[in-house]
Amino acid sequence: MADSTDDRRFMAAAIALSERGRGLSTPNPNVGCLIVRDGVVVGRGWTQKGGRPHAEAQALDQALDQARGATAYVTLEPCFHLSARGPRCADLMARAGVTRVVIALRDPDPRTDGQGAEHLRARGIQVEMGLMAQEAASAMCGFVLRQTLGRPAVTLKLGLSLDGCIALKNGSSRWITGEAARAHAHLERARHDAILVGGGTLRADKPRLDVRLRGLENRSPRRLLLSRGAAPKGWEAIEHPGDIAALAHVDHLLIEGGAAAAASFLHADLVDRLLLYRAPILIGSGLPGLGDIGLSDLAQAHGRWRLTDERKLGEDRLEVYERQRSA
Amino acid sequence: MADSTDDRRFMAAAIALSERGRGLSTPNPNVGCLIVRDGVVVGRGWTQKGGRPHAEAQALDQALDQARGATAYVTLEPCFHLSARGPRCADLMARAGVTRVVIALRDPDPRTDGQGAEHLRARGIQVEMGLMAQEAASAMCGFVLRQTLGRPAVTLKLGLSLDGCIALKNGSSRWITGEAARAHAHLERARHDAILVGGGTLRADKPRLDVRLRGLENRSPRRLLLSRGAAPKGWEAIEHPGDIAALAHVDHLLIEGGAAAAASFLHADLVDRLLLYRAPILIGSGLPGLGDIGLSDLAQAHGRWRLTDERKLGEDRLEVYERQRSA
Repeated sequence: MADSTDDRRFMAAAIALSERGRGLSTPNPNVGCLIVRDGVVVGRGWTQKGGRPHAEAQALDQALDQARGATAYVTLEPCFHLSARGPRCADLMARAGVTRVVIALRDPDPRTDGQGAEHLRARGIQVEMGLMAQEAASAMCGFVLRQTLGRPAVTLKLGLSLDGCIALKNGSSRWITGEAARAHAHLERARHDAILVGGGTLRADKPRLDVRLRGLENRSPRRLLLSRGAAPKGWEAIEHPGDIAALAHVDHLLIEGGAAAAASFLHADLVDRLLLYRAPILIGSGLPGLGDIGLSDLAQAHGRWRLTDERKLGEDRLEVYERQRSA
Repeated sequence: MADSTDDRRFMAAAIALSERGRGLSTPNPNVGCLIVRDGVVVGRGWTQKGGRPHAEAQALDQALDQARGATAYVTLEPCFHLSARGPRCADLMARAGVTRVVIALRDPDPRTDGQGAEHLRARGIQVEMGLMAQEAASAMCGFVLRQTLGRPAVTLKLGLSLDGCIALKNGSSRWITGEAARAHAHLERARHDAILVGGGTLRADKPRLDVRLRGLENRSPRRLLLSRGAAPKGWEAIEHPGDIAALAHVDHLLIEGGAAAAASFLHADLVDRLLLYRAPILIGSGLPGLGDIGLSDLAQAHGRWRLTDERKLGEDRLEVYERQRSA
């Protein structure tokens, strides 16, 4: 029996695995799964491209007979609903002889929503639900927001000078941040299903928005344009920020610029996460990172953003802020 | 005999003491001094208001007979030049029977510049110079810059939203940062001899620029105005940033606003330290923190600022950047 410290450690590993499927697993949630027997990891899985195989199926496939009597750590309640695309994970678990299942997040999908856990318990399997649920929800934020708010999780990326500029007044923005920060931003692209820019950025920068990191070239996301006009070849246009709700197979959306597009999503309160890449430079009377977000009173601005991560990237610093919403 | 770890520990304490005189000790440097005998601190001193008594005199006064055979840690080479205002510290040390003197920074004042140390050595006292010299120079930066560049050390304070704004477009700036950040900013006021604002800030905000912290009310600095016009009562006007060189008894100058005044000092490369108080809020199309600083090429902006300190202040964060100048 693992003690609770071990449980947290294994669940943290499962959550880390789940991150590998982020931006890749739609229409399924990016679940992570670890099979542990006598303290040894015997199987690891995460939801694969396009949603199959599921994390549990992949992990059990690795564990083979060693799954018998093992504990499974899974970031989302194993699915219980029947699908033409593959078996139910709750069935797979039971059949493999797993005797304990530790679940982070109860599946908000009404087709499962507790029934996966019930099914396991009915088969005599010990089930614990709720361990590190918040961390798991954060790793699967796109899926969770699809279920709860009916739209993708939206990340806004800004590359800023210390005084909040994204370019000189003449538009020059090469480079504000250094190589390490730019590489990290490409990694973030790979974690999203789609990237959006505004019409001005498309015209000015002609961005490729691809993932230029070796080994991740095939992870380049779909390209979206916020524009009333038609999209060029290889792009899809949406007219309003709210239109993201209707985008199929987009659970994680990255907004990359410019100031007007960023502001229109903030104005609509459709940004869940800020990635601030900050270079230790001052620009002075340059182009600001954000246009009008509809703020008329400073008091309204407070209590919305919480710093959840930060790191040094070469000379630059990344800060991650998450939108605080009352439940 | 103290080992080198102890030496560093005691010198760090002497440097911390020296900070108490910052903004207070002109026309003398804000020196700190510790007298240690058999590992026990028997005297502590820092340069007092107006420059006298010197740190060494105060520390020796506490130590009395216990100074005999003790080690003195002093952040600046003891003065050797004769003054009508008080005795030479090199003499005081020798007379008190101190047998070892550890000095951080050699005095750049040509009237001492090594002669204080020589004098001590000639009296049979063991002298070591250079321990934590950089940290000591940083704590006495106003004095050091007076000696090397002929002007005070200049700190620029900015209270910013994450997107670099100092106010809404309508000018409203109450409040961006919270109470803890504002209290810290008042503490910084007490560490400066003078505070400067521009004409626009004076007209718009009518700032008192005083230190509103209990027990430090009498530490409110002189008030300077960057303006071609006349200064109101209780204020002094300077026309150009370069005029700060001529200000008597100002070793540490704080620039508090607004964007134009800040930019003119940056344009003249007369800012040595940035205090960025950053609130976790977004404003969007507000008033930027900086006006034109004369930057025409992003490459010029890099390599100038280095993060030297940071801390959380309530919900806000303070970042301290120092200007990197080649020697």
